[in-house]
Amino acid sequence: MSSNKPSLPKGTRDFSPIEMARRNYIFDTIKKVYKKYGFQQIETPAMENLSTLVGTGGDESDKLIFKILNSGDYLAKADEKALQEKNANGLTKSIAEKALHYDLTVPFARYIVQNQNEITFPFRRFQIQPVWRADRPQKGRYREFYQCDADIIGSDSLLNEVDLIKIIDDVFTELFQGKLNYTVSVNNRKILQGIVESVGETDKFEQIVVAIDKFDKVGKEGVVNEVLNLGVLPDDAKKILNLILVEGVRDYLFLKIKNANKIEVESELLNSLSKYLGNTINGQKGIEELEFVFEKLEKLGLKTARVIFDPTLARGLGYYTGTIIEVKVDNFPSICGGGRYDDLTGKFGLKDVSGVGISFGADRIYDVLLDNNLYPEFEGDSTQVLFVNFGEKEQDYCLPLLFQLRDEDINAEIYPEAAKLKKQMTFANNKNINYVVLVGSDEMASGKLTVKNMKTGEQHAFTIEELIQELKK
Amino acid sequence: MSSNKPSLPKGTRDFSPIEMARRNYIFDTIKKVYKKYGFQQIETPAMENLSTLVGTGGDESDKLIFKILNSGDYLAKADEKALQEKNANGLTKSIAEKALHYDLTVPFARYIVQNQNEITFPFRRFQIQPVWRADRPQKGRYREFYQCDADIIGSDSLLNEVDLIKIIDDVFTELFQGKLNYTVSVNNRKILQGIVESVGETDKFEQIVVAIDKFDKVGKEGVVNEVLNLGVLPDDAKKILNLILVEGVRDYLFLKIKNANKIEVESELLNSLSKYLGNTINGQKGIEELEFVFEKLEKLGLKTARVIFDPTLARGLGYYTGTIIEVKVDNFPSICGGGRYDDLTGKFGLKDVSGVGISFGADRIYDVLLDNNLYPEFEGDSTQVLFVNFGEKEQDYCLPLLFQLRDEDINAEIYPEAAKLKKQMTFANNKNINYVVLVGSDEMASGKLTVKNMKTGEQHAFTIEELIQELKK
Repeated sequence: MSSNKPSLPKGTRDFSPIEMARRNYIFDTIKKVYKKYGFQQIETPAMENLSTLVGTGGDESDKLIFKILNSGDYLAKADEKALQEKNANGLTKSIAEKALHYDLTVPFARYIVQNQNEITFPFRRFQIQPVWRADRPQKGRYREFYQCDADIIGSDSLLNEVDLIKIIDDVFTELFQGKLNYTVSVNNRKILQGIVESVGETDKFEQIVVAIDKFDKVGKEGVVNEVLNLGVLPDDAKKILNLILVEGVRDYLFLKIKNANKIEVESELLNSLSKYLGNTINGQKGIEELEFVFEKLEKLGLKTARVIFDPTLARGLGYYTGTIIEVKVDNFPSICGGGRYDDLTGKFGLKDVSGVGISFGADRIYDVLLDNNLYPEFEGDSTQVLFVNFGEKEQDYCLPLLFQLRDEDINAEIYPEAAKLKKQMTFANNKNINYVVLVGSDEMASGKLTVKNMKTGEQHAFTIEELIQELKK
Repeated sequence: MSSNKPSLPKGTRDFSPIEMARRNYIFDTIKKVYKKYGFQQIETPAMENLSTLVGTGGDESDKLIFKILNSGDYLAKADEKALQEKNANGLTKSIAEKALHYDLTVPFARYIVQNQNEITFPFRRFQIQPVWRADRPQKGRYREFYQCDADIIGSDSLLNEVDLIKIIDDVFTELFQGKLNYTVSVNNRKILQGIVESVGETDKFEQIVVAIDKFDKVGKEGVVNEVLNLGVLPDDAKKILNLILVEGVRDYLFLKIKNANKIEVESELLNSLSKYLGNTINGQKGIEELEFVFEKLEKLGLKTARVIFDPTLARGLGYYTGTIIEVKVDNFPSICGGGRYDDLTGKFGLKDVSGVGISFGADRIYDVLLDNNLYPEFEGDSTQVLFVNFGEKEQDYCLPLLFQLRDEDINAEIYPEAAKLKKQMTFANNKNINYVVLVGSDEMASGKLTVKNMKTGEQHAFTIEELIQELKK
């Protein structure tokens, strides 16, 4: 076999033991909160039929899908014409029937339709799995990363929205321990519809939403320019922007918001908007929906979340139809997002099923916690006790003691060879092991083990029972 | 969007909430035991460079690898000649640089070499992830399935083998609860080498191992025929078989083995073998190694595992060089297997690193537990309490109580709409919810909630504090 220098495909990563401990801490926290709210876990395969995935998120999304080459002689059934013309795009379907899912939402929609007779609706499901996207890799953006989704399907009650925002509050209260501010921005697609309707440009709704979505990046003028480029009249473009900014009210309110523990029911803002949108049914409906959510949240209270109405929040993806949500920490891209959609399962033949969901971006949360030094110490996750190996006789004396610890659910190991003491101590240090047990002829004679606390450097003489007691403290 | 009936690629599966609860129970049990023995978790990406994966398990393995089509215009760099000749095999490398890993061992070898300067050896790592194989799907064999691997790298101490067999004992003692017999067969590749050497057919070692590997399926005569077909002389073929069966001693010993809790140190068998293998260094070494492992296991004791020396155990895969292990339950294919290998990282340029590992087959263990009714009840994994929704007033009364339960870490939800009572009770039943809380005007006046135990049918009047107490019992 030839020697070849190993590497990983770009945009993919290994996770070392310490990274795994941190990731599991995030997943376990999210999982625990999801369960507290009655969500049940499912998993779907990494591979789906390509036909299931394409055409749900638009052409741009289709390009991001990793396709899997058919097994065996895949050229036998290849599209002859596309092959001749070297038309990769045209060829794909005939040589790759399967693909890796690029989110968990489309596989979930497929799951619902396939299992609709076994599912009791409203169905609260969560799903924590990797997804794959053929995106250009860059800092914080990977080709393989984890999503942590929760959705409620088959209920249009706005109590579900309230639950999802409370989940966000619970998760980040636990992960951030009150040491980091974060903002939950909420909007409603129906309000955006009302705004676009009020200037009579309903047919350009999707493009205008994409333009508004860039507000954070390109600012007021940028959005106006984008909207003008869509062929909207200058007066209407300005009106759209004014409505979104509610004539300066928004800036004023943002200044006012200081108490992060108090939910900001921005009644002035909603009222102000309501006045202008009076003539559009969608606009009024959107405002009512938001008012319901804010009112419930105000009554129930929030632990650490700062929840605001953000009329510039658009969220690019096409399928949202109601509430939209996004969570941000200063200087980081969105760490959680979601919203309500009314026709996710339509593609698979099941109409009129409303759903609402959120997704935590585990990889970004990972970075936020690391940058802000917010991980707990993961004691006990690794080995707690190492028996030093001084030779055959000592080893045979230690083995039953080692298994006594393990049977008490204490993570323990013996160094497998009688290596130099220094090497064994370095091993214990590098592996962050708390206690090292040293057994020589004295210890074997007395039954008192020499136990070194690797943090304090202190040594004690313990019987095995005393050591177990010490460790169980 | 056209309606299309959704389905899954063959050989792949969804996991429903109850299936997830069972699978997590298996993973959590294995994980806990791995940690108890000082193993640390890592994860590697699903995608590896194709060049990392090919050529490690032989041509047959290479065919099982799912390749991922390059993104964008993948035909631009396609191998012109292969394309003209419609030679799929020749084309693949030029249009698919990445692939899905088909086991966790090769990615781990790649990980070690890439991170050798950060790793403290001996390195005990575990890894629980899906793998993908383009195998023909059949009952119990999937194209996407989970492996649960533990390996110790950088130590040739046989104490590691002892630990791995004790891990098997711990895991199945917990999962089978003493209600199911299982056999841990152990052999050593060096013994097989000795046998082949003793008839002077060392150059046919790999093929002879493959033939012996079929013993369970084709029996004595089948193995002899296979070996004859390799061009081995009839007398030598018979001698190989006799050595493996140790002239009938094996059958006799199998009859003798009745006490499943006692480790069978098959000294007669090892002695008998030793006599014939006296002239081969490998054979003697293999016997010594096995004797060490059996002796330690006998001293330490086993909880439920029946460990036997099985000279017919060969394990097909090429890379094993020492101890080999396989675990079986009646009427099921192998549920766990592993062994020692001396040159796993050689392909990536790191020589002389010995390792030993095992892998639990989660999907088969799943079936064994299901068939034998060995799953615990997963109470508390789903919602414990449902508040019935009788309308707006009652809903507003219940909401703060609901969140009081959640803040006590009790999984709870409210039915999101004021649907018919029967519908809400059916929902509670289908979701296996233990307690249903009914709040009407009487309850709102008194503060005493009507709580129905869905298992017994009993109803009690509880304040919210009393309910919390009841649930925490």
